[in-house]
Amino acid sequence: MANQEDIFKKVISHAKEYGYVAQSSEIYDGLSAVYDYLQNGAELKKNIREYWWQAMVQLNENIVGIDSAIFMHPTTWKASGHIDAFNDPLIDNKDSKKRYRADVLIEDYVAKIEAKIDKEITKAAKRFGDSFDEAQYRATNPRVKDYQQKSETILKRMASSLEKEDLADVKNLIEELEIACPLSGSRNWTDVKQFNLMFGTKLGASADSAMDLYLRPETAQGIFVNFLNVQKSGRLKIPFGIAQIGKAFRNEIVARQFIFRMREFEQMEMQFFIRPGTQKEWYETWKEARMKWHLSLGMGEENYRFHDHEKLAHYADAAADIEFKFPFGFKELEGIHSRTDFDLGSHEKYSGKKLQYFDPELEESYVPYVVETSIGLDRMFLAVLSNSLVEEELENGSSRTVLKIPAVLAPTKAAVLPLVKKDGLPEIAHKIIADLRLDFNVIYDEKDAVGRRYRRQDAAGTPFCITVDHQTLEDNSVTIRHRDTMEQKRIAIKDIPAVMEKEVAMKYWLQKLAES
Amino acid sequence: MANQEDIFKKVISHAKEYGYVAQSSEIYDGLSAVYDYLQNGAELKKNIREYWWQAMVQLNENIVGIDSAIFMHPTTWKASGHIDAFNDPLIDNKDSKKRYRADVLIEDYVAKIEAKIDKEITKAAKRFGDSFDEAQYRATNPRVKDYQQKSETILKRMASSLEKEDLADVKNLIEELEIACPLSGSRNWTDVKQFNLMFGTKLGASADSAMDLYLRPETAQGIFVNFLNVQKSGRLKIPFGIAQIGKAFRNEIVARQFIFRMREFEQMEMQFFIRPGTQKEWYETWKEARMKWHLSLGMGEENYRFHDHEKLAHYADAAADIEFKFPFGFKELEGIHSRTDFDLGSHEKYSGKKLQYFDPELEESYVPYVVETSIGLDRMFLAVLSNSLVEEELENGSSRTVLKIPAVLAPTKAAVLPLVKKDGLPEIAHKIIADLRLDFNVIYDEKDAVGRRYRRQDAAGTPFCITVDHQTLEDNSVTIRHRDTMEQKRIAIKDIPAVMEKEVAMKYWLQKLAES
Repeated sequence: MANQEDIFKKVISHAKEYGYVAQSSEIYDGLSAVYDYLQNGAELKKNIREYWWQAMVQLNENIVGIDSAIFMHPTTWKASGHIDAFNDPLIDNKDSKKRYRADVLIEDYVAKIEAKIDKEITKAAKRFGDSFDEAQYRATNPRVKDYQQKSETILKRMASSLEKEDLADVKNLIEELEIACPLSGSRNWTDVKQFNLMFGTKLGASADSAMDLYLRPETAQGIFVNFLNVQKSGRLKIPFGIAQIGKAFRNEIVARQFIFRMREFEQMEMQFFIRPGTQKEWYETWKEARMKWHLSLGMGEENYRFHDHEKLAHYADAAADIEFKFPFGFKELEGIHSRTDFDLGSHEKYSGKKLQYFDPELEESYVPYVVETSIGLDRMFLAVLSNSLVEEELENGSSRTVLKIPAVLAPTKAAVLPLVKKDGLPEIAHKIIADLRLDFNVIYDEKDAVGRRYRRQDAAGTPFCITVDHQTLEDNSVTIRHRDTMEQKRIAIKDIPAVMEKEVAMKYWLQKLAES
Repeated sequence: MANQEDIFKKVISHAKEYGYVAQSSEIYDGLSAVYDYLQNGAELKKNIREYWWQAMVQLNENIVGIDSAIFMHPTTWKASGHIDAFNDPLIDNKDSKKRYRADVLIEDYVAKIEAKIDKEITKAAKRFGDSFDEAQYRATNPRVKDYQQKSETILKRMASSLEKEDLADVKNLIEELEIACPLSGSRNWTDVKQFNLMFGTKLGASADSAMDLYLRPETAQGIFVNFLNVQKSGRLKIPFGIAQIGKAFRNEIVARQFIFRMREFEQMEMQFFIRPGTQKEWYETWKEARMKWHLSLGMGEENYRFHDHEKLAHYADAAADIEFKFPFGFKELEGIHSRTDFDLGSHEKYSGKKLQYFDPELEESYVPYVVETSIGLDRMFLAVLSNSLVEEELENGSSRTVLKIPAVLAPTKAAVLPLVKKDGLPEIAHKIIADLRLDFNVIYDEKDAVGRRYRRQDAAGTPFCITVDHQTLEDNSVTIRHRDTMEQKRIAIKDIPAVMEKEVAMKYWLQKLAES
């Protein structure tokens, strides 16, 4: 089996070859950590968006959606804490002029110590054979103990300095450890400085009157500042939720792993407003509901796990990630956070406006508590794409590449193929497309032998191939081939919609989800 | 009848009251020329997007969609001409520190001269009565002739100076005309400077290595730079189109008229790639197709008109607007432009990459020509909203406010109302919602007398009200009330989906459009 890195590379090149994703501005040699979605990628993204929106907004009577602007009043980011605390600690090497995240430099140093420990353990395991007890060895071998203590001490000191914002000590630590610039080998460092991850811009033309704006680093704040507008105009009663899908921007220093961590990305967030004191219950409810949504796509229960946070952000009283098994390991795909009244309370403070809800049952007003679900649309896209790409050995010894995207999300639902480019077969194929296209995204493909066309559609992720042949002329039947099983059935043209609806229509998937 | 300005004000306040649009960051006293779409606005916007996307991408076998990033490599904007030529000429008043568009100052001055002419003409018309010949009077009256000549001279000189980029002469003109700052009354002006309308930001943390980026001022360039990626991976043959919906940003100095001209807005653009020499034909085809799309919504043929451009942008060999009658007059809603090979040719030049297409019929390679259709999503939203808001006098002497949004675009398709909050009627209402919600966005409303609920749904733009009453308990029938006619019919619960589908389902509207 290929190793994980090779698989990931294959995903990236497949994404480009089959019209899913390409680097932004590729003809200008690209823009780092920014990507464009091509014709199949745009449809997959659109389908993920829609499946989320329908599941959240349409299936829940008490959730509505909004679409707020990327530009917001700068005080928003003061209130949210982003201006003061949305920072990475950075350090420049004076010789290479290269900038690094100070914490990453230290973590990389520690990783090297841990690699040494691993090496010792591997050596010892070889030496002792079956009788080797790793735990005991770690606890007793002086060299290993020493390494372990060292790495713990370093990480503890770094964490404590960062928490106290003692950046001078972070620099001291780098100097004490004699960490060198990986590029220049030099230890000639600047001071460590906090660098804010928000992209800034200026609104208005006049230098005097220009206003410093930020591109929003998250969509959630657009929901909080509109809490009362939505609640009042919609006459909504707590508990209720406000959902939103939109772009967010973070000026990441270390942006890598394809579309996993981009500087421009898209979030699907829902803030659920509740009575204070009920947050534990709603937090559990939403953890379960969101996991159900993921599992409904059938991408394998074993590929998901919860990761409960022990260390909580200042605004949270509980937080968990839904992690997915990406080609580079289990990583965060979605977060569920119990945010208390931090956000609304903070906006009250900074705006001087009351952001309260009068609870008719309790007959009192309060600042609602919030449970948030927040998923990265691009990460979800990568989860689907990387999970779907399969190289299959076939019975006849050949192999095929197939993109087993959940049918409800597949960009194209069916390809209609005339067996040959004559005898009226293309005309029938176009007629079938015309009858299907109001319900499904279907395409026409007439080039190459039909076997090659099947392979091409497999690789592009198309769940059905519908082939028009000479028998069609006689009895109005076609063959319908299933991407995953490669099974072919002969069915009447008039039965195509019913067969497809059961597998690809969003309605049926939502129904299943609603009943699960 | 109320005047147009009052009607526009009514649209804006209605938009907020009924959960369509509010100013961005309102709790922080707002952000100028940036707006948020609330729960009904988000759904209306989503439906407009979908109706456009389906009409363009799904109904046309040879059009595909993409979703490219807002951030692009800065050379993109050099190639497109935006860095050099996407400017407004600005001038500051040194006393008030207020900045103006120099051309608008001059145009306002000319508008005052023209107001004087109008006054003369009105006076003369009164004096001469029926025998007054305006054309003759304009040609002979020395004062009017003088005014007319003056205003023409000014406009001509301004146009020529701007075209030659002779900004010093634009300033001279302002000084010669003794134009004063409307705020301070002072004539103490700075020089005129070109101000680029693109929002800038910086990518990357290092001051040395940071890259100047722009927020895209149009989505079209994301299509052009991906032309080959899409054509090759999709094996597309000319003629074909690439469609895209996305945000764009312009740092407008004079941004007003609600969501008509915003600093952050959304475009729906399609670039159609064709063989050189066929542009006239495709230009006409797309003008007609786009007008058909607009007319399919039934908002009144009299509210649309073409405006063919006489003065063409440097990249165009033909251009027309589809104008819509907004509350403030006929204004551009969509543009159709024959862009020649300007864009692809320019990207070839700047990137050094070939952006050509090998035409298998002609057996030669060429840079394709492009016909573009470009519509502002927010403008379309405003067209729908302002056209739909109606105050109706009823037969009984009372009046109602109704938002006659085309049913396919309406945010909520039906409200289900139990006549009373007891006797099991709410349960039946919720059951009806559960059965409809996979197909339609439907809501529940039980508060207030049913007549008031009807009015509320009329004002919110909901096409159907479905009322559950005591007879429902006996025969499983409900009343279904139509927003526009206020007609009520008694129908069986099981017939609701069929009745609704014929009026609100996107599929039926697309079918009509495809057949038109």
